[in-house]
Amino acid sequence: MDKNERLTMIVFDGDLDKAMASFIIATGAAAMGKQVTMFFTFWGLNVLRKEEVIHAKKSFMEKMFARMMPRGPKKLGLSNMNMAGMGPKVMKRMMKEKNVSSLEELIEMAQDLDVKMVACTMSMDVMGLQQEELIDGLEYAGVASYLAEADEANTNLFI
Amino acid sequence: MDKNERLTMIVFDGDLDKAMASFIIATGAAAMGKQVTMFFTFWGLNVLRKEEVIHAKKSFMEKMFARMMPRGPKKLGLSNMNMAGMGPKVMKRMMKEKNVSSLEELIEMAQDLDVKMVACTMSMDVMGLQQEELIDGLEYAGVASYLAEADEANTNLFI
Amino acid sequence: MDKNERLTMIVFDGDLDKAMASFIIATGAAAMGKQVTMFFTFWGLNVLRKEEVIHAKKSFMEKMFARMMPRGPKKLGLSNMNMAGMGPKVMKRMMKEKNVSSLEELIEMAQDLDVKMVACTMSMDVMGLQQEELIDGLEYAGVASYLAEADEANTNLFI
Repeated sequence: MDKNERLTMIVFDGDLDKAMASFIIATGAAAMGKQVTMFFTFWGLNVLRKEEVIHAKKSFMEKMFARMMPRGPKKLGLSNMNMAGMGPKVMKRMMKEKNVSSLEELIEMAQDLDVKMVACTMSMDVMGLQQEELIDGLEYAGVASYLAEADEANTNLFI
Repeated sequence: MDKNERLTMIVFDGDLDKAMASFIIATGAAAMGKQVTMFFTFWGLNVLRKEEVIHAKKSFMEKMFARMMPRGPKKLGLSNMNMAGMGPKVMKRMMKEKNVSSLEELIEMAQDLDVKMVACTMSMDVMGLQQEELIDGLEYAGVASYLAEADEANTNLFI
Repeated sequence: MDKNERLTMIVFDGDLDKAMASFIIATGAAAMGKQVTMFFTFWGLNVLRKEEVIHAKKSFMEKMFARMMPRGPKKLGLSNMNMAGMGPKVMKRMMKEKNVSSLEELIEMAQDLDVKMVACTMSMDVMGLQQEELIDGLEYAGVASYLAEADEANTNLFI
Protein backbone atom coordinates (compact mmCIF):
# COMPACT_ATOMS: atom_id res chain seq x y z
CA MET A 1 0.00 0.00 0.00
CA ASP A 2 1.28 3.45 -0.92
CA LYS A 3 2.12 5.63 2.08
CA ASN A 4 0.00 8.43 0.67
CA GLU A 5 -3.05 6.25 1.12
CA ARG A 6 -2.68 6.43 4.88
CA LEU A 7 -2.65 9.18 7.48
CA THR A 8 -2.38 8.97 11.27
CA MET A 9 -2.85 11.44 14.04
CA ILE A 10 -2.37 11.44 17.77
CA VAL A 11 -5.17 13.43 19.40
CA PHE A 12 -3.66 14.51 22.70
CA ASP A 13 -5.61 17.67 23.45
CA GLY A 14 -9.20 17.57 24.60
CA ASP A 15 -10.21 21.05 23.53
CA LEU A 16 -13.17 21.61 21.24
CA ASP A 17 -11.18 23.58 18.68
CA LYS A 18 -8.34 21.07 18.40
CA ALA A 19 -10.82 18.17 18.31
CA MET A 20 -12.68 19.98 15.49
CA ALA A 21 -9.42 20.42 13.57
CA SER A 22 -8.59 16.71 14.03
CA PHE A 23 -11.93 15.51 12.73
CA ILE A 24 -12.01 17.99 9.84
CA ILE A 25 -8.63 16.66 8.68
CA ALA A 26 -9.64 13.04 9.37
CA THR A 27 -12.95 13.19 7.51
CA GLY A 28 -11.39 15.22 4.69
CA ALA A 29 -8.67 12.63 4.23
CA ALA A 30 -11.11 9.72 4.49
CA ALA A 31 -13.39 11.35 1.90
CA MET A 32 -10.37 11.48 -0.42
CA GLY A 33 -10.05 7.72 -0.01
CA LYS A 34 -7.27 7.62 2.58
CA GLN A 35 -7.21 5.13 5.42
CA VAL A 36 -7.10 7.28 8.55
CA THR A 37 -6.16 6.27 12.09
CA MET A 38 -6.80 8.58 15.03
CA PHE A 39 -5.02 7.61 18.21
CA PHE A 40 -6.65 9.27 21.25
CA THR A 41 -4.47 9.74 24.28
CA PHE A 42 -4.48 11.76 27.53
CA TRP A 43 -7.10 14.58 27.36
CA GLY A 44 -8.00 13.49 23.85
CA LEU A 45 -9.89 10.60 25.44
CA ASN A 46 -12.45 13.10 26.76
CA VAL A 47 -13.62 13.63 23.18
CA LEU A 48 -14.72 9.98 23.14
CA ARG A 49 -16.55 9.94 26.46
CA LYS A 50 -20.26 9.24 26.54
CA GLU A 51 -22.38 12.15 27.67
CA GLU A 52 -24.20 10.27 30.42
CA VAL A 53 -22.59 9.35 33.75
CA ILE A 54 -21.52 5.71 33.65
CA HIS A 55 -21.17 4.04 37.02
CA ALA A 56 -17.96 2.07 36.61
CA LYS A 57 -16.03 0.57 39.51
CA LYS A 58 -13.39 3.13 40.40
CA SER A 59 -11.10 4.24 43.18
CA PHE A 60 -11.89 7.50 44.94
CA MET A 61 -9.23 9.37 42.98
CA GLU A 62 -10.42 7.98 39.66
CA LYS A 63 -13.96 9.06 40.47
CA MET A 64 -12.84 12.60 41.27
CA PHE A 65 -10.73 12.78 38.15
CA ALA A 66 -13.52 11.45 35.94
CA ARG A 67 -15.96 13.92 37.45
CA MET A 68 -13.73 16.89 36.72
CA MET A 69 -12.99 15.98 33.11
CA PRO A 70 -15.51 16.84 30.39
CA ARG A 71 -17.81 14.06 29.21
CA GLY A 72 -17.83 14.09 25.43
CA PRO A 73 -17.90 16.63 22.61
CA LYS A 74 -20.64 18.86 24.05
CA LYS A 75 -18.68 19.63 27.19
CA LEU A 76 -15.26 20.48 25.78
CA GLY A 77 -13.66 23.89 26.31
CA LEU A 78 -11.57 25.95 23.92
CA SER A 79 -7.76 26.13 23.94
CA ASN A 80 -8.07 29.90 23.58
CA MET A 81 -10.73 32.49 24.48
CA ASN A 82 -12.58 29.89 26.55
CA MET A 83 -13.93 32.67 28.80
CA ALA A 84 -15.37 30.34 31.44
CA GLY A 85 -17.32 28.34 28.88
CA MET A 86 -18.77 31.25 26.91
CA GLY A 87 -16.18 30.85 24.14
CA PRO A 88 -17.32 27.36 23.12
CA LYS A 89 -20.96 28.55 23.01
CA VAL A 90 -20.07 31.49 20.77
CA MET A 91 -17.97 29.30 18.49
CA LYS A 92 -20.69 26.66 18.19
CA ARG A 93 -23.24 29.33 17.29
CA MET A 94 -20.91 30.83 14.69
CA MET A 95 -20.27 27.37 13.24
CA LYS A 96 -23.99 26.71 13.03
CA GLU A 97 -24.63 30.01 11.24
CA LYS A 98 -22.01 29.06 8.65
CA ASN A 99 -23.38 25.54 8.27
CA VAL A 100 -20.20 23.95 9.57
CA SER A 101 -20.79 20.49 11.04
CA SER A 102 -20.70 20.21 14.81
CA LEU A 103 -18.09 18.01 16.48
CA GLU A 104 -20.76 15.37 17.20
CA GLU A 105 -21.65 15.29 13.50
CA LEU A 106 -17.98 15.11 12.48
CA ILE A 107 -17.43 12.13 14.80
CA GLU A 108 -20.42 10.34 13.27
CA MET A 109 -19.14 11.19 9.79
CA ALA A 110 -15.70 9.81 10.70
CA GLN A 111 -17.28 6.56 11.84
CA ASP A 112 -19.36 6.34 8.64
CA LEU A 113 -16.17 6.87 6.61
CA ASP A 114 -14.43 4.04 8.51
CA VAL A 115 -11.88 6.27 10.20
CA LYS A 116 -10.16 3.99 12.70
CA MET A 117 -10.47 5.48 16.16
CA VAL A 118 -8.14 3.99 18.73
CA ALA A 119 -8.18 4.73 22.47
CA CYS A 120 -4.77 4.58 24.16
CA THR A 121 -5.06 1.88 26.82
CA MET A 122 -2.24 3.24 28.96
CA SER A 123 -3.86 6.68 29.20
CA MET A 124 -7.22 5.07 29.98
CA ASP A 125 -5.55 3.18 32.79
CA VAL A 126 -3.85 6.27 34.24
CA MET A 127 -6.98 8.40 33.99
CA GLY A 128 -9.18 5.61 35.29
CA LEU A 129 -11.43 5.53 32.23
CA GLN A 130 -13.12 2.26 31.29
CA GLN A 131 -14.38 0.98 27.95
CA GLU A 132 -18.05 1.35 28.90
CA GLU A 133 -17.49 5.08 29.45
CA LEU A 134 -16.36 5.62 25.86
CA ILE A 135 -18.45 5.63 22.69
CA ASP A 136 -18.93 2.43 20.68
CA GLY A 137 -16.87 1.39 17.69
CA LEU A 138 -13.43 2.13 19.12
CA GLU A 139 -10.32 -0.03 19.06
CA TYR A 140 -8.03 -0.27 22.07
CA ALA A 141 -4.25 -0.31 21.76
CA GLY A 142 -0.94 1.09 22.96
CA VAL A 143 1.95 3.11 21.62
CA ALA A 144 3.56 0.20 19.74
CA SER A 145 0.43 -0.17 17.66
CA TYR A 146 0.45 3.57 16.88
CA LEU A 147 4.11 3.47 15.84
CA ALA A 148 3.51 0.54 13.50
CA GLU A 149 0.71 2.47 11.80
CA ALA A 150 2.76 5.66 11.54
CA ASP A 151 5.41 3.68 9.65
CA GLU A 152 2.85 2.93 6.95
CA ALA A 153 1.68 6.54 6.55
CA ASN A 154 3.23 9.58 4.94
CA THR A 155 1.46 12.16 7.10
CA ASN A 156 1.58 11.74 10.88
CA LEU A 157 0.32 14.59 13.02
CA PHE A 158 0.37 15.22 16.77
CA ILE A 159 -2.58 17.43 17.69
CA MET B 1 9.97 16.15 -7.06
CA ASP B 2 11.66 14.47 -4.11
CA LYS B 3 9.56 14.52 -0.93
CA ASN B 4 12.52 15.92 0.98
CA GLU B 5 12.29 19.05 -1.10
CA ARG B 6 8.98 19.92 0.49
CA LEU B 7 7.70 20.60 4.00
CA THR B 8 4.24 21.56 5.23
CA MET B 9 2.89 22.78 8.49
CA ILE B 10 -0.51 23.54 9.90
CA VAL B 11 -0.31 26.61 12.12
CA PHE B 12 -3.26 26.20 14.46
CA ASP B 13 -2.10 28.14 17.51
CA GLY B 14 -2.03 31.89 17.56
CA ASP B 15 0.53 32.33 20.31
CA LEU B 16 3.68 34.37 19.76
CA ASP B 17 6.02 31.57 20.80
CA LYS B 18 4.42 28.93 18.59
CA ALA B 19 4.21 31.38 15.68
CA MET B 20 7.94 32.14 16.17
CA ALA B 21 8.74 28.41 16.14
CA SER B 22 6.69 27.94 12.94
CA PHE B 23 8.44 30.73 11.10
CA ILE B 24 11.91 29.76 12.31
CA ILE B 25 11.35 26.25 10.92
CA ALA B 26 9.73 27.60 7.74
CA THR B 27 12.44 30.13 6.93
CA GLY B 28 15.17 27.65 7.89
CA ALA B 29 13.75 25.05 5.52
CA ALA B 30 13.21 27.59 2.74
CA ALA B 31 16.80 28.82 3.13
CA MET B 32 17.91 25.20 2.62
CA GLY B 33 16.04 25.22 -0.68
CA LYS B 34 12.87 23.46 0.39
CA GLN B 35 9.44 24.44 -0.87
CA VAL B 36 7.48 25.23 2.29
CA THR B 37 3.72 25.54 2.73
CA MET B 38 2.23 26.98 5.90
CA PHE B 39 -1.48 26.38 6.31
CA PHE B 40 -2.99 28.81 8.84
CA THR B 41 -6.16 27.70 10.56
CA PHE B 42 -8.24 28.68 13.63
CA TRP B 43 -6.21 30.95 15.98
CA GLY B 44 -3.25 30.73 13.61
CA LEU B 45 -5.12 33.16 11.36
CA ASN B 46 -4.53 35.90 13.95
CA VAL B 47 -0.84 35.82 13.04
CA LEU B 48 -1.82 37.02 9.57
CA ARG B 49 -4.15 39.83 10.61
CA LYS B 50 -3.31 43.39 9.70
CA GLU B 51 -2.55 45.63 12.65
CA GLU B 52 -5.05 48.33 11.77
CA VAL B 53 -8.80 47.91 12.26
CA ILE B 54 -10.43 47.07 8.94
CA HIS B 55 -14.10 47.89 8.62
CA ALA B 56 -15.48 44.85 6.90
CA LYS B 57 -19.17 44.00 6.72
CA LYS B 58 -19.85 41.68 9.63
CA SER B 59 -22.60 40.36 11.85
CA PHE B 60 -22.67 41.52 15.47
CA MET B 61 -21.11 38.28 16.69
CA GLU B 62 -18.35 38.41 14.08
CA LYS B 63 -17.56 41.96 15.11
CA MET B 64 -17.28 41.00 18.79
CA PHE B 65 -15.16 37.97 17.96
CA ALA B 66 -12.84 39.97 15.71
CA ARG B 67 -12.45 42.64 18.37
CA MET B 68 -11.42 40.12 21.02
CA MET B 69 -8.85 38.32 18.91
CA PRO B 70 -5.35 39.79 18.51
CA ARG B 71 -4.63 41.73 15.32
CA GLY B 72 -1.30 40.51 13.97
CA PRO B 73 2.12 39.55 15.29
CA LYS B 74 2.57 42.49 17.67
CA LYS B 75 -0.50 41.61 19.68
CA LEU B 76 -0.03 37.88 20.22
CA GLY B 77 0.25 36.37 23.70
CA LEU B 78 2.45 33.51 24.90
CA SER B 79 1.28 29.91 25.36
CA ASN B 80 3.11 29.90 28.69
CA MET B 81 4.11 32.59 31.22
CA ASN B 82 1.92 35.12 29.44
CA MET B 83 1.42 37.01 32.71
CA ALA B 84 -1.27 39.35 31.41
CA GLY B 85 0.83 40.46 28.47
CA MET B 86 4.10 41.05 30.33
CA GLY B 87 5.54 37.72 29.15
CA PRO B 88 5.50 38.63 25.45
CA LYS B 89 7.20 41.97 26.24
CA VAL B 90 9.96 40.26 28.20
CA MET B 91 10.45 37.63 25.51
CA LYS B 92 10.60 40.24 22.73
CA ARG B 93 13.20 42.22 24.67
CA MET B 94 15.29 39.11 25.29
CA MET B 95 15.06 38.21 21.60
CA LYS B 96 16.18 41.67 20.62
CA GLU B 97 19.18 41.55 22.97
CA LYS B 98 20.23 38.27 21.34
CA ASN B 99 19.71 39.62 17.83
CA VAL B 100 16.97 37.11 17.09
CA SER B 101 14.59 38.32 14.37
CA SER B 102 11.17 39.48 15.51
CA LEU B 103 8.06 37.66 14.28
CA GLU B 104 7.30 40.54 11.90
CA GLU B 105 10.79 40.18 10.39
CA LEU B 106 10.43 36.40 10.14
CA ILE B 107 7.12 36.78 8.28
CA GLU B 108 8.74 39.17 5.82
CA MET B 109 11.68 36.82 5.43
CA ALA B 110 9.29 33.92 4.76
CA GLN B 111 7.59 35.96 2.04
CA ASP B 112 10.95 36.88 0.50
CA LEU B 113 11.91 33.19 0.49
CA ASP B 114 8.65 32.31 -1.29
CA VAL B 115 7.19 30.34 1.59
CA LYS B 116 3.62 29.64 0.53
CA MET B 117 1.24 30.98 3.17
CA VAL B 118 -2.30 29.67 2.91
CA ALA B 119 -5.27 30.88 4.95
CA CYS B 120 -7.88 28.22 5.70
CA THR B 121 -11.11 29.48 4.15
CA MET B 122 -13.37 27.44 6.42
CA SER B 123 -11.78 28.88 9.57
CA MET B 124 -12.01 32.38 8.09
CA ASP B 125 -15.69 31.82 7.50
CA VAL B 126 -16.34 30.52 11.04
CA MET B 127 -14.35 33.31 12.67
CA GLY B 128 -15.82 35.94 10.38
CA LEU B 129 -12.45 37.06 9.01
CA GLN B 130 -12.30 38.52 5.51
CA GLN B 131 -9.46 38.70 3.00
CA GLU B 132 -8.99 42.45 3.41
CA GLU B 133 -8.27 41.92 7.12
CA LEU B 134 -5.30 39.67 6.38
CA ILE B 135 -1.87 40.62 5.07
CA ASP B 136 -1.15 40.57 1.35
CA GLY B 137 0.43 37.72 -0.56
CA LEU B 138 -1.65 34.89 0.89
CA GLU B 139 -3.38 32.04 -0.87
CA TYR B 140 -6.83 30.85 0.19
CA ALA B 141 -7.77 27.19 0.33
CA GLY B 142 -9.36 24.38 2.32
CA VAL B 143 -8.34 21.12 3.93
CA ALA B 144 -8.30 19.12 0.66
CA SER B 145 -5.62 21.44 -0.69
CA TYR B 146 -3.56 20.97 2.50
CA LEU B 147 -3.86 17.18 2.29
CA ALA B 148 -2.72 17.14 -1.33
CA GLU B 149 0.38 19.15 -0.39
CA ALA B 150 1.13 16.97 2.64
CA ASP B 151 1.20 13.95 0.31
CA GLU B 152 4.09 15.55 -1.57
CA ALA B 153 6.16 16.34 1.55
CA ASN B 154 8.18 14.18 3.90
CA THR B 155 7.84 16.43 6.94
CA ASN B 156 4.35 17.55 7.94
CA LEU B 157 3.94 19.31 11.28
CA PHE B 158 0.89 20.43 13.25
CA ILE B 159 1.85 23.40 15.40
CA MET C 1 18.97 3.61 6.11
CA ASP C 2 15.24 3.06 5.75
CA LYS C 3 13.16 6.07 6.81
CA ASN C 4 11.06 3.83 9.04
CA GLU C 5 14.11 3.21 11.16
CA ARG C 6 14.12 6.82 12.31
CA LEU C 7 11.70 9.11 14.11
CA THR C 8 12.10 12.73 15.19
CA MET C 9 10.12 15.00 17.42
CA ILE C 10 10.26 18.64 18.37
CA VAL C 11 9.40 19.01 22.05
CA PHE C 12 8.14 22.58 22.29
CA ASP C 13 5.83 22.38 25.30
CA GLY C 14 7.15 22.13 28.80
CA ASP C 15 4.10 20.58 30.42
CA LEU C 16 4.34 17.34 32.35
CA ASP C 17 1.65 15.60 30.32
CA LYS C 18 3.11 16.53 26.92
CA ALA C 19 6.62 15.65 28.12
CA MET C 20 5.30 12.26 29.28
CA ALA C 21 3.69 11.69 25.88
CA SER C 22 6.95 12.61 24.12
CA PHE C 23 9.04 10.21 26.16
CA ILE C 24 6.51 7.38 25.97
CA ILE C 25 6.61 7.63 22.17
CA ALA C 26 10.40 8.06 22.14
CA THR C 27 11.18 5.10 24.40
CA GLY C 28 8.54 2.97 22.65
CA ALA C 29 10.10 3.69 19.27
CA ALA C 30 13.65 3.16 20.56
CA ALA C 31 12.63 -0.17 22.12
CA MET C 32 11.36 -1.21 18.65
CA GLY C 33 14.86 -0.50 17.32
CA LYS C 34 14.27 2.93 15.82
CA GLN C 35 16.82 5.71 16.02
CA VAL C 36 14.98 8.54 17.77
CA THR C 37 15.92 12.22 17.91
CA MET C 38 14.15 14.59 20.31
CA PHE C 39 14.75 18.25 19.61
CA PHE C 40 13.94 20.38 22.68
CA THR C 41 13.03 23.98 22.03
CA PHE C 42 11.37 26.89 23.91
CA TRP C 43 9.53 25.61 27.02
CA GLY C 44 10.57 22.07 26.19
CA LEU C 45 14.04 22.99 27.47
CA ASN C 46 12.59 23.14 30.99
CA VAL C 47 12.18 19.36 30.87
CA LEU C 48 15.97 19.10 30.63
CA ARG C 49 16.84 21.50 33.45
CA LYS C 50 18.70 20.23 36.48
CA GLU C 51 16.71 20.36 39.67
CA GLU C 52 19.26 22.33 41.66
CA VAL C 53 19.90 26.05 41.18
CA ILE C 54 22.99 26.54 39.03
CA HIS C 55 24.74 29.87 39.42
CA ALA C 56 25.55 30.77 35.85
CA LYS C 57 26.56 34.24 34.73
CA LYS C 58 23.39 35.93 33.59
CA SER C 59 21.83 39.29 32.96
CA PHE C 60 19.13 40.47 35.37
CA MET C 61 16.37 39.58 32.93
CA GLU C 62 17.80 36.12 32.29
CA LYS C 63 17.95 35.48 36.03
CA MET C 64 14.31 36.48 36.50
CA PHE C 65 13.24 34.37 33.57
CA ALA C 66 15.21 31.35 34.78
CA ARG C 67 13.74 31.70 38.25
CA MET C 68 10.17 31.72 36.98
CA MET C 69 10.53 28.70 34.72
CA PRO C 70 10.30 25.18 36.20
CA ARG C 71 13.59 23.39 36.88
CA GLY C 72 13.26 19.88 35.51
CA PRO C 73 10.66 17.10 35.38
CA LYS C 74 9.54 17.31 39.02
CA LYS C 75 8.41 20.91 38.70
CA LEU C 76 6.42 20.82 35.48
CA GLY C 77 2.74 21.74 35.37
CA LEU C 78 -0.07 20.19 33.33
CA SER C 79 -1.44 21.62 30.08
CA ASN C 80 -4.93 21.00 31.42
CA MET C 81 -6.45 20.70 34.91
CA ASN C 82 -3.28 22.07 36.43
CA MET C 83 -5.27 23.51 39.34
CA ALA C 84 -2.42 25.54 40.83
CA GLY C 85 -0.11 22.55 40.96
CA MET C 86 -2.54 20.03 42.42
CA GLY C 87 -3.21 18.46 39.01
CA PRO C 88 0.38 17.25 38.51
CA LYS C 89 0.38 15.73 42.02
CA VAL C 90 -2.84 13.84 41.39
CA MET C 91 -1.62 12.64 37.99
CA LYS C 92 1.71 11.47 39.41
CA ARG C 93 -0.07 9.54 42.16
CA MET C 94 -2.42 7.94 39.66
CA MET C 95 0.55 7.01 37.46
CA LYS C 96 2.33 5.45 40.41
CA GLU C 97 -0.73 3.39 41.38
CA LYS C 98 -0.86 2.03 37.83
CA ASN C 99 2.88 1.33 37.74
CA VAL C 100 3.47 3.79 34.93
CA SER C 101 7.05 5.10 34.88
CA SER C 102 7.57 8.65 36.09
CA LEU C 103 8.94 11.27 33.72
CA GLU C 104 12.34 11.07 35.46
CA GLU C 105 12.41 7.31 34.85
CA LEU C 106 11.34 7.76 31.22
CA ILE C 107 14.15 10.26 30.63
CA GLU C 108 16.67 7.81 32.08
CA MET C 109 15.21 5.03 29.98
CA ALA C 110 15.49 7.21 26.87
CA GLN C 111 19.16 7.84 27.61
CA ASP C 112 19.78 4.11 28.17
CA LEU C 113 18.10 3.40 24.82
CA ASP C 114 20.36 5.95 23.09
CA VAL C 115 17.59 8.34 22.22
CA LYS C 116 19.38 11.41 20.89
CA MET C 117 18.34 14.43 22.92
CA VAL C 118 19.20 17.76 21.34
CA ALA C 119 18.81 21.17 22.99
CA CYS C 120 18.00 24.02 20.60
CA THR C 121 20.85 26.50 20.94
CA MET C 122 18.84 29.48 19.71
CA SER C 123 16.13 28.92 22.31
CA MET C 124 18.78 28.48 25.01
CA ASP C 125 20.25 31.78 23.97
CA VAL C 126 16.90 33.61 24.02
CA MET C 127 15.86 32.11 27.36
CA GLY C 128 19.31 32.63 28.84
CA LEU C 129 19.85 28.96 29.64
CA GLN C 130 23.40 27.62 29.72
CA GLN C 131 24.74 24.11 29.18
CA GLU C 132 25.63 23.61 32.85
CA GLU C 133 21.98 24.16 33.78
CA LEU C 134 20.83 21.23 31.66
CA ILE C 135 21.24 17.51 32.32
CA ASP C 136 24.24 15.65 30.97
CA GLY C 137 24.37 13.69 27.75
CA LEU C 138 22.68 16.24 25.50
CA GLU C 139 23.72 17.44 22.08
CA TYR C 140 23.45 21.10 21.09
CA ALA C 141 22.26 22.22 17.68
CA GLY C 142 19.99 24.49 15.69
CA VAL C 143 17.06 24.22 13.32
CA ALA C 144 19.15 23.23 10.29
CA SER C 145 20.33 20.14 12.13
CA TYR C 146 16.74 19.25 13.04
CA LEU C 147 15.59 19.66 9.44
CA ALA C 148 18.37 17.41 8.16
CA GLU C 149 17.32 14.69 10.60
CA ALA C 150 13.63 15.06 9.75
CA ASP C 151 14.52 14.39 6.10
CA GLU C 152 15.83 10.98 7.12
CA ALA C 153 12.76 9.99 9.14
CA ASN C 154 9.27 8.95 8.15
CA THR C 155 7.54 10.13 11.34
CA ASN C 156 8.19 13.71 12.48
CA LEU C 157 6.07 15.08 15.30
CA PHE C 158 5.73 18.55 16.83
CA ILE C 159 4.64 18.18 20.44
